[in-house]
Amino acid sequence: MSQRITGVLSPVITPFRADYTPDADRFIQQCRWLLGNDVGLAVFGTNSEANSLSVVERMELLEQLVASGVDPARLMPGTGACALPDAVQLTAHAVKLGCAGALMLPPFYYKGVSDEGLFRSFSEVIQRVGDHRLKVYLYHIPPVAQVGIGLDLIERLLSAYPGTIAGIKDSSGDLHNMTAMLDRFAPQGFDVFAGTETLLLANMQAGGAGCISATANVNPGPIAALYRHWQGPDAVQRQAALDALRAIFAKYPMIPALKAAVAHWSGDTQWRTVRPPLVELQPSQTQSLIHELTAAGFSMEGLNA
Amino acid sequence: MSQRITGVLSPVITPFRADYTPDADRFIQQCRWLLGNDVGLAVFGTNSEANSLSVVERMELLEQLVASGVDPARLMPGTGACALPDAVQLTAHAVKLGCAGALMLPPFYYKGVSDEGLFRSFSEVIQRVGDHRLKVYLYHIPPVAQVGIGLDLIERLLSAYPGTIAGIKDSSGDLHNMTAMLDRFAPQGFDVFAGTETLLLANMQAGGAGCISATANVNPGPIAALYRHWQGPDAVQRQAALDALRAIFAKYPMIPALKAAVAHWSGDTQWRTVRPPLVELQPSQTQSLIHELTAAGFSMEGLNA
Repeated sequence: MSQRITGVLSPVITPFRADYTPDADRFIQQCRWLLGNDVGLAVFGTNSEANSLSVVERMELLEQLVASGVDPARLMPGTGACALPDAVQLTAHAVKLGCAGALMLPPFYYKGVSDEGLFRSFSEVIQRVGDHRLKVYLYHIPPVAQVGIGLDLIERLLSAYPGTIAGIKDSSGDLHNMTAMLDRFAPQGFDVFAGTETLLLANMQAGGAGCISATANVNPGPIAALYRHWQGPDAVQRQAALDALRAIFAKYPMIPALKAAVAHWSGDTQWRTVRPPLVELQPSQTQSLIHELTAAGFSMEGLNA
Repeated sequence: MSQRITGVLSPVITPFRADYTPDADRFIQQCRWLLGNDVGLAVFGTNSEANSLSVVERMELLEQLVASGVDPARLMPGTGACALPDAVQLTAHAVKLGCAGALMLPPFYYKGVSDEGLFRSFSEVIQRVGDHRLKVYLYHIPPVAQVGIGLDLIERLLSAYPGTIAGIKDSSGDLHNMTAMLDRFAPQGFDVFAGTETLLLANMQAGGAGCISATANVNPGPIAALYRHWQGPDAVQRQAALDALRAIFAKYPMIPALKAAVAHWSGDTQWRTVRPPLVELQPSQTQSLIHELTAAGFSMEGLNA
């Protein structure tokens, strides 16, 4: 974990068979396509339905991914959990496999918990994993987790574990929050990833490290291109094109829409399956989504059929 | 699971050692004290910090409890989880041990999920467990889970699984919601437990089955007495006395306050420990809580010191 991971990462969607078991072969294939588009792998994120997977399922998928030859330096698996032992087990496992970082949700069942309680949660994981290779990326996603990670908590964690607390994924969608984190912590080597590519250019301009975004699952190449060329003359146009595409996906439930798009362009209908409590798109929604995407000139080049 | 469980149940607080491991001996001792006060055991509820426990920890504690001689007909363990395989494993395990019921949270990570998705979640668990002994009690606690269980979903589940969907714990705190469920579903044998003893009398008067309440951990005898005597001449006074005591606890973070009370009256300070992200009461809070409780004439008789 010596080299910091930066750039564009995808919270890789998790393929399921009809019986809802995870499909490692399709998963590895999708990960390879993303890597081929210069996108890293934030596997087991919100868009991966990770919290709908058991600890064992997550560990097995990660092992199979690494065993397939994927470079763990391109991996930032989600390892946060409500239960401390689960978070410790997942995080230690990711470190052992050589992953570049661990993206950690706070425990998210209890609401209105204190910074002291959240500090203890992260602190216990770091101490119990007890490995200098560990790089923790905090995962701030208040719209879903309802439990956020504020600036004072980050400061306290950075002070206590300066070599370990490496950055954050900010999925608040709040530009002000993102720039406040950059102003306060980027000088200490704290890497801020925007939680959407809509804020990628703004994040890079303010000193950020990249983005980890749902739509990197389907539009990896152009998002990665903006990351590479954010200082180029066409950066604003690139950002506008990304925003236009995201706006189409945002009209639908995101995870089922991502899977519907992959199913369509790969010709592999199994990709449509989501685990309960999520529900796949209705046929009319799928038709409308694909129509809009096609009209916008979208395609997924090189996706294995 | 032929005999329906009713009355007052406690979401039993889970004792931890200093290293945050669950303490089965203290747990069993506390469960026995509750049973001796005519209170059943809704172990692994919100107040049990159940979502802060791993699946294995929950199964081991339940096995030790049953092995200690506790009658599983008095047990309604929480078995809901974000991940379908976890909910299936926990529920099948509870049924195998002969528990009277399983109290099931919906998957609670994703917010704004559809009734179709929640129906599939519960339906998959019921089908995969595949045991006619299973009695599912739905757990509606929108202030914490943020994912609620509405009347239309209950109706659909009752229609699909009339012998299995046995009731609900309603922790909405909304009297109107509780009576609406009773009006619509009690005639079909659907047992409604109030999520607080504050609504116990109202629930019984409207045809309910009892309550499952945090403060049953510390005030079991008087709550159980109101259940037994809800048609008696002093029911309103009994309810008022319960409300007055609950009002004291409600001034503090509930779970740490329950544990502080048990620690004080048992003389066993280890009971104060909560798992992160929760935090134990500050010394000044504990002092104030114990002072108020003592002034109100509260004690915990027969609690093992």
